[in-house]
Amino acid sequence: MDTKSLARSFIYTDWTLIETQFEPDKLHSRETIFTIGNGYLGTRGSFEEGYVRALPATFIYGVYNDVPVVYTELVNCPDWLPLVVIVNGDRFRLDRGEILRYERQLDLRYGILSRSIRWRSPSGHTIDIQFERFASLADEHVLEQRCQLTPLDFDGLIEVQASINGYPENQGFNHWENIDQGKTEHGIWLHSRTRNSLIDLAMGAKMTISGTEASLQVNTAPGYPTLSSTFLAVAQQTITVEKLITVFTSRDIDTPVTGALEKLAHLPDYTLLLNDHKQAWERVWQQSDIVIEGDTTAAFAVRYNLFQLLIAAPWHDDRVSIPAKTLSGFGYRGHIFWDTEIFLLPFFIFTQPKVARNLLSYRCHTLNGARRKASHSGYKGAMYPWESAVTGDEVTPRWSLPNDFYAEDVRIWCRDREIHISADITYAIWYYWQATSDDEWMRDCGAEIILDTAIFWSSRVEYNSQSARYEIRGVIGADEYHEFVHNNTFTNRIVQWHLEKALIVYDWLRQTFPERAQDLEQKLQITSEVRSCWQDIIAKMWIPYDPSTGLIEQFDGFFQLEDINLKDYEPRQKSMQTILGIEGANRRQVLKQPDVLMLLYLMRASAEFPYNQKTLQANWDYYAPRTDITYGSSLGPAIHAILAADLGKLDEAYKRFMQAAMVDLEDSRGNTKEGIHGASAGGVWLAVVFGFGGIQLTENGPVANPHLPSNWTRLKFKLHWRGQWHEFDLHQGLGTGDKGTRGQGGQEDKGNLSQTLSASLRFPFFASSSQSESEANHNPDIRGVIFDLDGVLTDTAEYHYLAWQKLADEEGIPFNRLANEALRGVSRRASLMLIVKDRQYSEAQIQEMMERKNRYYVELLKNITQNDLLPGAIALLDELRQAGIKTAIGSASKNARTVLQRLGIADKVDAIADGYSVQKPKPAPDLFLYAANQLGLEPAQSVVIEDAAAGIEAALAAGMWAVGLGPVERVGAAHVVLPSLAGIKWADIQAKLNDAAKQKNG
Amino acid sequence: MDTKSLARSFIYTDWTLIETQFEPDKLHSRETIFTIGNGYLGTRGSFEEGYVRALPATFIYGVYNDVPVVYTELVNCPDWLPLVVIVNGDRFRLDRGEILRYERQLDLRYGILSRSIRWRSPSGHTIDIQFERFASLADEHVLEQRCQLTPLDFDGLIEVQASINGYPENQGFNHWENIDQGKTEHGIWLHSRTRNSLIDLAMGAKMTISGTEASLQVNTAPGYPTLSSTFLAVAQQTITVEKLITVFTSRDIDTPVTGALEKLAHLPDYTLLLNDHKQAWERVWQQSDIVIEGDTTAAFAVRYNLFQLLIAAPWHDDRVSIPAKTLSGFGYRGHIFWDTEIFLLPFFIFTQPKVARNLLSYRCHTLNGARRKASHSGYKGAMYPWESAVTGDEVTPRWSLPNDFYAEDVRIWCRDREIHISADITYAIWYYWQATSDDEWMRDCGAEIILDTAIFWSSRVEYNSQSARYEIRGVIGADEYHEFVHNNTFTNRIVQWHLEKALIVYDWLRQTFPERAQDLEQKLQITSEVRSCWQDIIAKMWIPYDPSTGLIEQFDGFFQLEDINLKDYEPRQKSMQTILGIEGANRRQVLKQPDVLMLLYLMRASAEFPYNQKTLQANWDYYAPRTDITYGSSLGPAIHAILAADLGKLDEAYKRFMQAAMVDLEDSRGNTKEGIHGASAGGVWLAVVFGFGGIQLTENGPVANPHLPSNWTRLKFKLHWRGQWHEFDLHQGLGTGDKGTRGQGGQEDKGNLSQTLSASLRFPFFASSSQSESEANHNPDIRGVIFDLDGVLTDTAEYHYLAWQKLADEEGIPFNRLANEALRGVSRRASLMLIVKDRQYSEAQIQEMMERKNRYYVELLKNITQNDLLPGAIALLDELRQAGIKTAIGSASKNARTVLQRLGIADKVDAIADGYSVQKPKPAPDLFLYAANQLGLEPAQSVVIEDAAAGIEAALAAGMWAVGLGPVERVGAAHVVLPSLAGIKWADIQAKLNDAAKQKNG
Repeated sequence: MDTKSLARSFIYTDWTLIETQFEPDKLHSRETIFTIGNGYLGTRGSFEEGYVRALPATFIYGVYNDVPVVYTELVNCPDWLPLVVIVNGDRFRLDRGEILRYERQLDLRYGILSRSIRWRSPSGHTIDIQFERFASLADEHVLEQRCQLTPLDFDGLIEVQASINGYPENQGFNHWENIDQGKTEHGIWLHSRTRNSLIDLAMGAKMTISGTEASLQVNTAPGYPTLSSTFLAVAQQTITVEKLITVFTSRDIDTPVTGALEKLAHLPDYTLLLNDHKQAWERVWQQSDIVIEGDTTAAFAVRYNLFQLLIAAPWHDDRVSIPAKTLSGFGYRGHIFWDTEIFLLPFFIFTQPKVARNLLSYRCHTLNGARRKASHSGYKGAMYPWESAVTGDEVTPRWSLPNDFYAEDVRIWCRDREIHISADITYAIWYYWQATSDDEWMRDCGAEIILDTAIFWSSRVEYNSQSARYEIRGVIGADEYHEFVHNNTFTNRIVQWHLEKALIVYDWLRQTFPERAQDLEQKLQITSEVRSCWQDIIAKMWIPYDPSTGLIEQFDGFFQLEDINLKDYEPRQKSMQTILGIEGANRRQVLKQPDVLMLLYLMRASAEFPYNQKTLQANWDYYAPRTDITYGSSLGPAIHAILAADLGKLDEAYKRFMQAAMVDLEDSRGNTKEGIHGASAGGVWLAVVFGFGGIQLTENGPVANPHLPSNWTRLKFKLHWRGQWHEFDLHQGLGTGDKGTRGQGGQEDKGNLSQTLSASLRFPFFASSSQSESEANHNPDIRGVIFDLDGVLTDTAEYHYLAWQKLADEEGIPFNRLANEALRGVSRRASLMLIVKDRQYSEAQIQEMMERKNRYYVELLKNITQNDLLPGAIALLDELRQAGIKTAIGSASKNARTVLQRLGIADKVDAIADGYSVQKPKPAPDLFLYAANQLGLEPAQSVVIEDAAAGIEAALAAGMWAVGLGPVERVGAAHVVLPSLAGIKWADIQAKLNDAAKQKNG
Repeated sequence: MDTKSLARSFIYTDWTLIETQFEPDKLHSRETIFTIGNGYLGTRGSFEEGYVRALPATFIYGVYNDVPVVYTELVNCPDWLPLVVIVNGDRFRLDRGEILRYERQLDLRYGILSRSIRWRSPSGHTIDIQFERFASLADEHVLEQRCQLTPLDFDGLIEVQASINGYPENQGFNHWENIDQGKTEHGIWLHSRTRNSLIDLAMGAKMTISGTEASLQVNTAPGYPTLSSTFLAVAQQTITVEKLITVFTSRDIDTPVTGALEKLAHLPDYTLLLNDHKQAWERVWQQSDIVIEGDTTAAFAVRYNLFQLLIAAPWHDDRVSIPAKTLSGFGYRGHIFWDTEIFLLPFFIFTQPKVARNLLSYRCHTLNGARRKASHSGYKGAMYPWESAVTGDEVTPRWSLPNDFYAEDVRIWCRDREIHISADITYAIWYYWQATSDDEWMRDCGAEIILDTAIFWSSRVEYNSQSARYEIRGVIGADEYHEFVHNNTFTNRIVQWHLEKALIVYDWLRQTFPERAQDLEQKLQITSEVRSCWQDIIAKMWIPYDPSTGLIEQFDGFFQLEDINLKDYEPRQKSMQTILGIEGANRRQVLKQPDVLMLLYLMRASAEFPYNQKTLQANWDYYAPRTDITYGSSLGPAIHAILAADLGKLDEAYKRFMQAAMVDLEDSRGNTKEGIHGASAGGVWLAVVFGFGGIQLTENGPVANPHLPSNWTRLKFKLHWRGQWHEFDLHQGLGTGDKGTRGQGGQEDKGNLSQTLSASLRFPFFASSSQSESEANHNPDIRGVIFDLDGVLTDTAEYHYLAWQKLADEEGIPFNRLANEALRGVSRRASLMLIVKDRQYSEAQIQEMMERKNRYYVELLKNITQNDLLPGAIALLDELRQAGIKTAIGSASKNARTVLQRLGIADKVDAIADGYSVQKPKPAPDLFLYAANQLGLEPAQSVVIEDAAAGIEAALAAGMWAVGLGPVERVGAAHVVLPSLAGIKWADIQAKLNDAAKQKNG
């Protein structure tokens, strides 16, 4: 199962990365690639004996210190690696003597880095040297090293020096001040303190030598305590040196020196420590591993990326979060971005939820920093920083300063303008809550974040009274090539979504934890005015979306920018921004990373607006070719992989997936030396699970709808959902469908639910169940479904609007889209009354206008085709007919039949109740009762699917089951609330109605 | 002779600074104060055993490396100081155990730092420890340390560890990469390399121990090679440890490691090295010492400041210059400012001219950097950087970046706007040349700098065609509180002066070294157009000077700024900029440092425009009270001291002098920790020699006109002038004058010139002697002096101008100040002809206009008073009368008598020749022949003092001796050229005429 790439001198096995030769020009990227860690610290894969220009580093979570320009950075800690071997007077170093054999291995299963060298010294002595190191996952304060020495062709003196290097550096800067050092009967110790943040760190070390007679000396060069030993080595006999290190900081305990020395004194031996460590890793992989068969490179690369996430996981610390470059390099100074919440977090939510909770708690601990940022920026509430460190204050540098004496400084605008981070955090919290049902954490931490950032938004949006809409001006969206834009759709929609969820969370909190709700109301001053303001923003947020095409403009004026054909620039090895310059990219239709597509990705899990297949297809076609997916942001490829899989573009999906998976192993962007691409690693998990695995989240847990790459014979992983584990073992070729791949359904692990493909149900709004109120019975016996037409099966709202607009224009009455919003679900006459307001018209005039408007509307309806069916409609109608469930239309429209014919579904329903059927309009129950009667059913056997509040009211008044489509604010009274019919199966609806019935009776 | 300031715990003796207690809160300022050095390197006075938060540093000239924001900085080099003493297991450190006695001494005479401590260890052992260190002045690559250990109350084991610390840091940043290290039979060595500039450095060290049996061990912790020894010490017996260090960089030799090790192998013992070192210091002090008696604090403080200059002097390296904070601290990153040329250089010119030459050669080596700066800024020629390092490229940081997460960055504008540096360098070169006659250096280096910076100026000035003048807009002047001003007089005048000198140097070069002149003409493209352009700029540069009051406006609109009374802000401990904010200071009449007064200081040596007593008094009265002399720039006080001494304000002068002298010893600005205030130290020498010593520079060398502070009984120093040493031994109270102090004249040392007070002669333009041409005889027998009136005794040019302007306005003829320049020395009729140009007037009209203009002029003359006498006029007239020399007026003016009466000197002259005396105007000799005749003298017995070219021509035509006042361009034909009569004594004129006569005959 070995794949050898000679060009890269790497061998990938199931679990092991093997480097077969030492290439000095790759020194720094390989130091990154061979990083080990245990979630307390990360240590780059630098050599024990050192190397000129090497960049050894050990980063410990939470240990930051001040620096100019970037404010604060993750500190390189005293180096525990130095282990110098002197062979008959020649110091072992790879740039001297001769390397006869070389192999470096990273064992992903157990997080062990080892290296074997056969070295001939300048004096001609040949020796085998074998190094091994790991950071204990069983005890995060313990680090271990072993060195085995076997002289091959000589007997001689070998000296070993095992040190702690108190002079570590961040690109030359040493954040530490040496406080004290010393020796004990067990070994040496060093006590250092960061210069400004005043964090104390203590390291202890001891060394044992077996296989020869050796005594230890202690040298105490200031800041460089060393244990050394000189001994006689005999040809062909192996001597083993073991160095055990303990480390504590004042973040862990009050007296780190005592802590380190006490632990050092009581450490068991190397083998026992290694055993504990291995067991800990086995437990971790049991939850988080992904098995891929048929594609060794992908199989290894996926594990490699998961390994990076796991060694960067703060297992026991909720005051920290994962930096953009994890704990593996100096890039981005250990700052935390949206990468964590949007790209890394899902892996933890679904495989290591406690880590996910720790990561989100970090945002809770830094909430006051976000408040300071809001206040300093002139806003209310909490505004999270684009780059975050210890306090949550903004630490994005303002400047990229050139080295050139005369070059201009480049202003970095993210701190000022890339504001979507506050909504991204809410998004992450929402899904953590959905997946874990961790109400306690939501009560104590999550709710406050969501609400106080919502308050920020209400102070940040601007009301444009001319257009009667809310706008967000002067931002950077997800795509960072455009540095100052207005109404970035990604930002506007995620803010709108955030406020929708803030209202839900607020209501939930009031119902579930009224005391906490009261506390927060007072603390954050959440008045009814504030909530009304949120609602108003939700209703009037400007989203530039063209319903006829589904195309979304990235921001105001994007389509007017100079267009670009990226193929004209191929082949290239640089980002488009580097090629075009900052201004050049700014004024062209070129994206650094998905933006509209990123929004669609985020709305995909719940199929909320504007996500549907049509929109996805339209925007993919437009934006994907304009996205710098190769050298733009490393955040892009995994997202493209998922969306491409959705669209059935499996080749494209696989290509993007591999691009993400190999970014560091192949150093394809040339910056792996700066650290692992953390977001890309998280994206790899997303692409496998949601893209190829096709996982959809339902009320009953995740279900798979796989699209495996053609060479994958098997894909196996586990997901944790609301306290239960779900195991998926997907195989190629079973139940072949149109796409050529059809996965085996997921198998449940501990619970007992049966999962089938057809049982997939779109992930619903968690809060909806707590808001459904009706008189329903246990185990409802549903025999028929009555569909409202407009807004459920199709959306003719646009045509109504256009017809009313034409009428109003002819009459000289002011009217616009905003005014039209008020007409949703309102009868024709009532609509006209709302339009004419207090203008005086005779009844004849009114009739004439109603007829005229209708004429226009009917005329417009001629344009309706099957394409105007809303996603999921036809599939559900078909499924119902196959399942023997009756269907009817219950629409107030007098044009219902025309519309149904144009839509091509007139023959798919069993009955039609329309504007001619009854006198009393919704919310009277008459129309639905008429429909049920037509179907020959009792009200309790009928379910109404409606998108208007009046329709839900009518259904409930009729004693029927009600399914509401759309926001809770509108259809929250229904038994079940769904975002739309997209992807909805009859079984999903049944299951939800069963739940609702149980809750009512329970 | 001890002065003890208990508050400061310092004792000052003649040559020794004694610190009597260890004060941890002053750790960093005392490290600066106890810096030692040898002009190759400087080493701060940090402790051998280390101390928490200490800032040890060794800076080696020329060793810079890249850093963000400030581009490059002087690198802290591997530390040669570490010498750890472990007493029976207790490491000696001042923050443990008990300090029973403490004394630190800096011996200025020999540059030796020593420290005696009696220490009781935590275990209760008492020991005397005596450290000593010096950087050899005899061999700059050798550093020495000695440590003497005397147990007082115990016998026990002592361990000594002597290291080289390869982890030095600049505020946390380690610029070094450790390349290699090792041991030899003689000791240990370390080889390091700067990260970006790739400068190799090697240090070797050896250690000897006497007074006990001791063997050495070598420890080689990476980057921290250490020699250690453990020995038995016996109570009351002294053990001596000597550590000798050698250091080389790749700037010195190709193989620094070899260099360091070879020198280490052949070093003589400590005592011999010390002896050589002391002899070297004695030679240095023989030239540079200043003896002050009667004021111990001042005496020590002056020596202390000179010591700082001497240890920072690059004795053997002409590629470097002295940083603002010398080699004693991290402040300003080792960058070089105008401080060196304007404040430090005179001390070296006059006491160590070879160092001065090295310092100026640095500007020659960095000329290409200055050219790059000009080119990048859109100008021609060479534009020196405000802050300079290795290459001469601009390294002033653009930003002062706050640590605060939300504070705004502060733009530093000096790199863009503080452009006077290029003229400052020319100023320094000019005076170096005057004082040394170093024509060779001027030819090879100086001329190119002066000419290429002149070319820069001609591209930088702007011609304002509306005002018909040249302007320099958008600058920062000497006063940095005003960050964007137009026509800063300091800048405008120094640029004008620069161009005047550029023309002289150009002419000199063409005459003296025509080949070099031709080379430079071609290389720099100095065409006749270029030279005409310079002349035009000289003629038309805008200098806002009010001749009626002498007041100079600092820049356009300064007088319109909000005024300030600094007393309203007393007492204060902060700069006015800190109190008012940057913008607050910008919009007020408050100065950080002298600006107009700085210009007057610079023009003082040659009494060039606008320097004279009247101007000085007027501008002192205006600007001194508005200058933040206490917390503004440390460059201010010494300049104020000199000018105050000029004005007879001895109390003020002494106060400012002491402020400069004590700035570091008392850390009065609170920033001594960042390094010695180098410019202030240079200013202390200036204040003593030029202020209190009253030294004036004459063709025959310096002469003294002392104003000693009342408590100074003696002031003794030496000056070097054109190859000869002049010694001054000035005493208080001899020949008491009005000011209460009258110094003993300077005594020549090696030459044989007699110096008296009355023999002082203003320092002339060096080039004048090579341009004077006449038929004068040896030893002229002068019996009378004929004075031109206008421009010599008084300046009625302004009144003439005002009268002509009135006339021209009435006639509607365009006329302005610039046009008026052409009328200097021109008769009334000819003036009128120049004004009316080709306009046609009848003779009657012409006569009428001449009369009308004269009427206006005579009317204006009523305003003339004694205050309109030019400086030096009345003193010279009085002296001549006392000396029995006849005097006459020879003026073309028909109003001469009226003017003389109004000036109050009509009775001080023996004859008057005026516009009525003769027919033929100058340049005809008639008028002067008439005057001599009136005095009864032969032409050869007469000397004419004139300021106009026509007047000089007339005098020469008359066969008289001619003294020209003003620029060489105008009066260069005279036998003697003087800037003005200010400070001129009759003996000076006689001496110059004698010289001129000798030259003519020689």
